Amino acid sequence: LEKKERHSPSTGIFFDIKNKLYNKRSAHQTIEVFENEYFGRILLLDGLVQTTEKDEFFYHEMLVHPPLVVHPDPKDCLVLGGGDGGVLKEILKHPVQSVLMVEIDPMVIEAAKLYFPWLDPALKDSRVDLVIRDGGEYIQREADKFDIVYVDSSDPAGPSLSLHEENFYKNLKRSLSKNGIAVAQAGSPFYHSASIKEMASRLKDVFRVMKFFTAPVPTYPGGFWCFVFLSDGILPAEIKRDPPLDLNYYDLEIHEAAFALPKFMKDLVENDSK
Amino acid sequence: LEKKERHSPSTGIFFDIKNKLYNKRSAHQTIEVFENEYFGRILLLDGLVQTTEKDEFFYHEMLVHPPLVVHPDPKDCLVLGGGDGGVLKEILKHPVQSVLMVEIDPMVIEAAKLYFPWLDPALKDSRVDLVIRDGGEYIQREADKFDIVYVDSSDPAGPSLSLHEENFYKNLKRSLSKNGIAVAQAGSPFYHSASIKEMASRLKDVFRVMKFFTAPVPTYPGGFWCFVFLSDGILPAEIKRDPPLDLNYYDLEIHEAAFALPKFMKDLVENDSK
Repeated sequence: LEKKERHSPSTGIFFDIKNKLYNKRSAHQTIEVFENEYFGRILLLDGLVQTTEKDEFFYHEMLVHPPLVVHPDPKDCLVLGGGDGGVLKEILKHPVQSVLMVEIDPMVIEAAKLYFPWLDPALKDSRVDLVIRDGGEYIQREADKFDIVYVDSSDPAGPSLSLHEENFYKNLKRSLSKNGIAVAQAGSPFYHSASIKEMASRLKDVFRVMKFFTAPVPTYPGGFWCFVFLSDGILPAEIKRDPPLDLNYYDLEIHEAAFALPKFMKDLVENDSK
Repeated sequence: LEKKERHSPSTGIFFDIKNKLYNKRSAHQTIEVFENEYFGRILLLDGLVQTTEKDEFFYHEMLVHPPLVVHPDPKDCLVLGGGDGGVLKEILKHPVQSVLMVEIDPMVIEAAKLYFPWLDPALKDSRVDLVIRDGGEYIQREADKFDIVYVDSSDPAGPSLSLHEENFYKNLKRSLSKNGIAVAQAGSPFYHSASIKEMASRLKDVFRVMKFFTAPVPTYPGGFWCFVFLSDGILPAEIKRDPPLDLNYYDLEIHEAAFALPKFMKDLVENDSK
């Protein structure tokens, strides 16, 4: 038995399935968890790999730690999406005061609680609150509230649609407190160059600082992913503190290196603020 | 019709085949070229992807340009393996005086001449010589001769075996002129950690400077590859000149960033000279 994810109409990745663990259709999407010999447990939403036990650290460490080492005093964090809990797990390694996770799909929470060991302990941490709601809707009413907002969306289709709309970015900015930073996943530089280009051209009108950065993620399309750091003044180079020590990918050398963009990506996001 | 390459016993990459172009068994290996809608022409040796038209630039730019921008006066280069011509193509963008390519398998040259547009013009360049021979054997008799040696091997099995043996590294060092630099591909940090660890422990006894560096390569296992820079004194940070301008991935920012290693890789190569 095999699971395939196409990254283009003619290419993709495959996994032999050792055990099927979960397969349900929620109000929003199809949710699957299966076990693979090499990657361990793998979560798919609408057929696309979201996270695996073996390589989750690349993505989650790189989304979470960069803003937490440069914000002058990060107390309150918001996670939009991220129901698998990987982002939450990484944030809680820092001495923040509160983390609110806004996830649209309670069945993603259910599946991740059952099959990924990090979600349940994270939800039991007294600093964490969970709201089941559309993140794009939630953020419409919030202003001047969060020091760091993480946009841990799935692809710009299905339940994550509202996290890719134009007004979303303005609401995102308004939700940030003074010195606030937002970080969003931004797709595969290799496979999704058109959507990265569009995202950059929208974001540059909203945030004064827009810095894309990259990291390898073996099970994502092309094995190579990008993220964007957004603020109205704080720069990613302004390191204020050391990251946690128990990481597998990220440290301060990687932090700096991640913002060096491949030549073809510089061309894509050339309106990047300097 | 589909082509699969397994990266572990239970995972891998697949390509739909648009056209089969070449499929022969040489004295050394099986050589295949096919066309895929997304990646264009793809070369496989013994079933493993070596190069594709669409993503070859990541690997070839990152193997070739780092030593050429730091060597004080690079005149004479040697390429061990590299029959597909991608390394040759990149070296010739610099004003070197000579490039010798030593490739064991004339049928790789035949296939690449037929199906990859860059090999034939490179071989016609007056600076280039081609020798059909085992690279590990060739280098046994050479001393104090090459400013830069590129080890563009395939995996440590089959015809590339002699490029992974212990004496090979000593011969490699002896073949270098004063201030010489060798660069070798070193596998997938994610999938091949054991062989990287072994390579590092051998190399540290031979070269005073051993610096691993990384780059994305979408069609290689994990989409993330590593290389090693070897010398007896020249450091990769000592930039002497600008790279060519017509590149897609590499520039001097990427050069510096590539040597920042993920935490888990620092542990693998911890005997890395500092």
